[in-house]
Amino acid sequence: MRATVMYGAGDVRVEQVPDPVLIEPTDAIVRITRSCICGSDLWPYKHMKPDPHGRRMGHEFIGVVEETGSDVHRVSRGDVVVAPFMYCDNTCDFCKEGLHTSCRRGGAWGMDGVDGGQGEAVRSPLADGTLVTLPVAADDPLMPSLLTLSDVLCTGHHAVVTSRVEKGSTVAVIGDGAVGLCGVLAARRAGAERILLLGHHRERTDLGRAFGATDVVVERGDEAVAHVRELTGGDGAHSVLECVGLVEAYRTALGITRPGGAVGRVGVPQYETAPLGRDVFRNNITVSGGVAPARAYIEELMPDILEGRIEPGRVFDMTVDLDGVPQGYRAMNERRALKVLITP
Amino acid sequence: MRATVMYGAGDVRVEQVPDPVLIEPTDAIVRITRSCICGSDLWPYKHMKPDPHGRRMGHEFIGVVEETGSDVHRVSRGDVVVAPFMYCDNTCDFCKEGLHTSCRRGGAWGMDGVDGGQGEAVRSPLADGTLVTLPVAADDPLMPSLLTLSDVLCTGHHAVVTSRVEKGSTVAVIGDGAVGLCGVLAARRAGAERILLLGHHRERTDLGRAFGATDVVVERGDEAVAHVRELTGGDGAHSVLECVGLVEAYRTALGITRPGGAVGRVGVPQYETAPLGRDVFRNNITVSGGVAPARAYIEELMPDILEGRIEPGRVFDMTVDLDGVPQGYRAMNERRALKVLITP
Repeated sequence: MRATVMYGAGDVRVEQVPDPVLIEPTDAIVRITRSCICGSDLWPYKHMKPDPHGRRMGHEFIGVVEETGSDVHRVSRGDVVVAPFMYCDNTCDFCKEGLHTSCRRGGAWGMDGVDGGQGEAVRSPLADGTLVTLPVAADDPLMPSLLTLSDVLCTGHHAVVTSRVEKGSTVAVIGDGAVGLCGVLAARRAGAERILLLGHHRERTDLGRAFGATDVVVERGDEAVAHVRELTGGDGAHSVLECVGLVEAYRTALGITRPGGAVGRVGVPQYETAPLGRDVFRNNITVSGGVAPARAYIEELMPDILEGRIEPGRVFDMTVDLDGVPQGYRAMNERRALKVLITP
Repeated sequence: MRATVMYGAGDVRVEQVPDPVLIEPTDAIVRITRSCICGSDLWPYKHMKPDPHGRRMGHEFIGVVEETGSDVHRVSRGDVVVAPFMYCDNTCDFCKEGLHTSCRRGGAWGMDGVDGGQGEAVRSPLADGTLVTLPVAADDPLMPSLLTLSDVLCTGHHAVVTSRVEKGSTVAVIGDGAVGLCGVLAARRAGAERILLLGHHRERTDLGRAFGATDVVVERGDEAVAHVRELTGGDGAHSVLECVGLVEAYRTALGITRPGGAVGRVGVPQYETAPLGRDVFRNNITVSGGVAPARAYIEELMPDILEGRIEPGRVFDMTVDLDGVPQGYRAMNERRALKVLITP
C-alpha cells in the first residue's frame, strides 16, 4: 500500500510500504477513508533531523474495518470507525479513569511497527478498545466533523475539562489553530459565558467567532495580557486554554489567568522549564492539561456532531488525496491552510 | 507594647513599638495569647538584606478581643479568636469562592501599618471577616492545636485539596516540617489509604507516623523517586503534597506523581522557573496549590480539633515567651526545634 513517510524537516514522501496484516488476535485491519494533517506534525516538519529509515506519519483517521483478529468482538468487517490519536485497551485502570493516553498496553500510531494514519490502511492494535463505530456511511457529509473526534475536538475539549470551564465561566483561548478553534467550540458547549480568542489570523478568528468566541484579542505578549485584563475588569479569565505549546504562549496564559483559575495546556510544550514561581503561587493558579485522552471523550462528543449542534469539521479548509500530502504539509506550514483533510 | 522586628538575616529583636489603636471602624484590637514562628519566617531569617526600618514579624496568632471599631459586629470584647495568616473581608467575590488570600481588601500581617503576630497585641483590619471565635477559654489545653488553624494545618489541608486527595488515594508528602506533618494529618482526614512521608529527621517522621503516615522514605532526590516508585508498583502517588518550596523538592514531586495525578504546592517557591515540559505533559500531571486561604478552612477543620480527632498542636516542640523569640528563631533555623510556640 501507499503511506506517508517523513525523512527529515520538510521532507515528506508518499511511498510504497508493506500492506498491513493481522499480527495479534486483538488487531484489526482498517481501510482508511479520511485522514488529516495535525498541527503537531508540523513540529517534526520544521525540526526533524534527517533519518534514512523515515518515520510513518498520521494519527487521525476514519476508515472501514476490513479484517479482524480472532479476539476482536466489538467491531467487525464493514464497520465505519474513528480512531483516537493513540490506541488503547480501554480496560486497564488508567483507561477506566479516563486517561487512555496512559493505557498500560497502548501506544502511538506510526511507531513500533504500527502504521500511521496518513496512508491507505492501518493495522490497529487493540481494536476493541481503540476503534469507535460511527453510525453513518463512509461517505456521509458529516465525515470532516466526525474526523475531528480523532484529535482536535477532543484536544480542545481536554483543555476545557482540565482548565475547569463551567457554566458562566470567562474563558480565554490562546491560539487560533484547529485545536484553539475546537477549544472555543468546546468551551461554548460547556456553558462558558464569555470566550476570548487570542489570535491574529483574521479568517481563523472569524471562524472562532462563528464557533462562539465573544471577543478576539489580536495583540501578542504583554499587549495581549493588558487587553485581556482590560476586557475582564482587571482580573483575567477563570480558565485559559493554552493551544500553542510555545513558552511565550504559556507566559501569556499565566498573565491572563484569574487568581484561583486554571491553565489547560494542550499545545505540545516546546520547552522544558517555564515560569512557576511566586506569582503563580500567590495567585493559586493551577497548571493542568496534557496529551488529550481522546478515546475518553469520543462517545460524549459524537452526538453533538450527529445531531448538528456543533460543526468542528469547518476547521478543514483544504483537501488533498495521498499524492497531495506533501503539498498539504507545505500549505499548513506556510499557514496557507488551517487544517488539511486527506481522502486517500 | 513589645513586638518582634527583623532587621536582616539572623537579626531578630523584640522591642518597643507603638501600641495598636483603632484606625478604621472595621478594626479590632486583639491582645495576643498565643503566637508562633513559621517555617516561612526562616526564609528572611536566612536571606533578608539589612533594613534599618526592620520588618514586623508573625502571622499566626490567637488572642482576646480588647476593643472593636463601630462597624464590627461579629466579634466583641472578650472573645477568644484565631486569625488566618492573611486578613480578609470574607464578603468579596474571591472570599465567596474560598480564595480569601486574594481578597479584594485583604492583606498580610506585619505590612502596610498592620502589626505582626509575634508581639503583645495587634490591630486587626477587617475584624468581622478575619477573626474566628473559638468556643473555649484563652488558656484551654487545646490552644496549640487551635493555633495551627492560623496557618500550618490549613496549609497542609490546602495541599490536600489542591492535589485532589480522596478516599482511597495514595498520597506522598514531601517535607517533614510542620506543614508536611499537618499535610499527613489532613490527608488521613480526607480518607487517603496510603500516605508516604518523605523526610529524614527521625523524630519528625515518627510524629508523621503518629499522624497517619504509612511509609517513610528517608532518601532524597533520584533515590527518593526510585523508592516511592518501588512502593507504588512503579506508578507513583495520585496526590503529592510539596511542602518545602525548593526546586529540588518540586522535581521530586514530579518524579513521584502518577499519570493523571496532581502536585499541591504549599511550600513558598524559592525559584522562578521549574520543569514543566514533555514529561509533565505526556503524563497529564497537574501542578496546583499556592498560598493557602486558611480563612476558608478554619470552620471546617476546627471541630476535628475540638472533638479530639486530630491533634496538630503536637508539631510544637518548644515554647518561648517574647524575650525568647530570637532563641526560637535560632532553634528552628538550626533544626533543633520543629515549630516554636510563643506565649507573650
